[in-house]
Amino acid sequence: MSSHKEQVQQRLRTIEGHVRGIYRMVEQDSYCIDVLMQMDAVQKALDQVGRMVMDQHLHGCVTTAIRSDDAVERERVIGELMQVFSERRK
Amino acid sequence: MSSHKEQVQQRLRTIEGHVRGIYRMVEQDSYCIDVLMQMDAVQKALDQVGRMVMDQHLHGCVTTAIRSDDAVERERVIGELMQVFSERRK
Amino acid sequence: MSSHKEQVQQRLRTIEGHVRGIYRMVEQDSYCIDVLMQMDAVQKALDQVGRMVMDQHLHGCVTTAIRSDDAVERERVIGELMQVFSERRK
Amino acid sequence: MSSHKEQVQQRLRTIEGHVRGIYRMVEQDSYCIDVLMQMDAVQKALDQVGRMVMDQHLHGCVTTAIRSDDAVERERVIGELMQVFSERRK
Repeated sequence: MSSHKEQVQQRLRTIEGHVRGIYRMVEQDSYCIDVLMQMDAVQKALDQVGRMVMDQHLHGCVTTAIRSDDAVERERVIGELMQVFSERRK
Repeated sequence: MSSHKEQVQQRLRTIEGHVRGIYRMVEQDSYCIDVLMQMDAVQKALDQVGRMVMDQHLHGCVTTAIRSDDAVERERVIGELMQVFSERRK
Repeated sequence: MSSHKEQVQQRLRTIEGHVRGIYRMVEQDSYCIDVLMQMDAVQKALDQVGRMVMDQHLHGCVTTAIRSDDAVERERVIGELMQVFSERRK
Repeated sequence: MSSHKEQVQQRLRTIEGHVRGIYRMVEQDSYCIDVLMQMDAVQKALDQVGRMVMDQHLHGCVTTAIRSDDAVERERVIGELMQVFSERRK
């Protein structure tokens, strides 16, 4: 599991650097459309990390909770999934 | 569960009528922005029905599959969830 | 311009039929994931029609308004563009 | 306009710090859902900066280009707007 965590961390480092690069683009009065395109690239990179985290969550916590006999816990993880699923579709 | 199904169907009927209404707006040369706003409303209505279907899916098929002893089946439902989760986040 | 209008209308007719098809899928208790995938396809088709309408809007009303000497009108069309641009990114 | 630029830069700095915070959350094995929620918050913050940049772009470059007599230039800015408009609606 450590390798997965490291991959997520590495990607977050890259995203952080990417945001810093956009800061510099703005500082140097880069063309607005180029700034917007780079911001879209960051959004897509975040989506990708999100998928990695979600994949691990489904295989880990969600599987454990749903296989348990604790109905409240099962309901809790499903409620959380619904929340994440809904978040950017408002 | 029938009441859930009926609710989903009723909303889909409403969405169908909404799309027909947009067709008429275009026919009558309505203002582009008004057309776009109505199309966004339809998208949001579809998001809402999507959440209802997903909620039922998590409580039904997903819970059953993950609680089963069939590892292949568990992997299948998780893979499907990842696909839906990723679909509009590319 | 009529051909553009007809194309938009034709696509809206197709989308309406697609929604009706999803209604029938639900009626026949189709698999939730298949229903969700079809709903995603409808949303993408709506996005496409939205792009066609937006393209015409930019070439028509927006260009006319911004080229006019009416500063209030120019501000109005830009405000509307911002509203549409923001709509599904909340 | 400098104040607008400073606001955009300030927000990008905040976003950069936010991403660094998520890195630390992952490092400390925070709960996946909490990580995903923070990532959604970053994406919303990026959307907001995107709106600020777009607003300036419409009032600046787009207005200048569309008011010019250079038809090729007008077409170019409209094409760019369509590209940004389409980017996250595929």
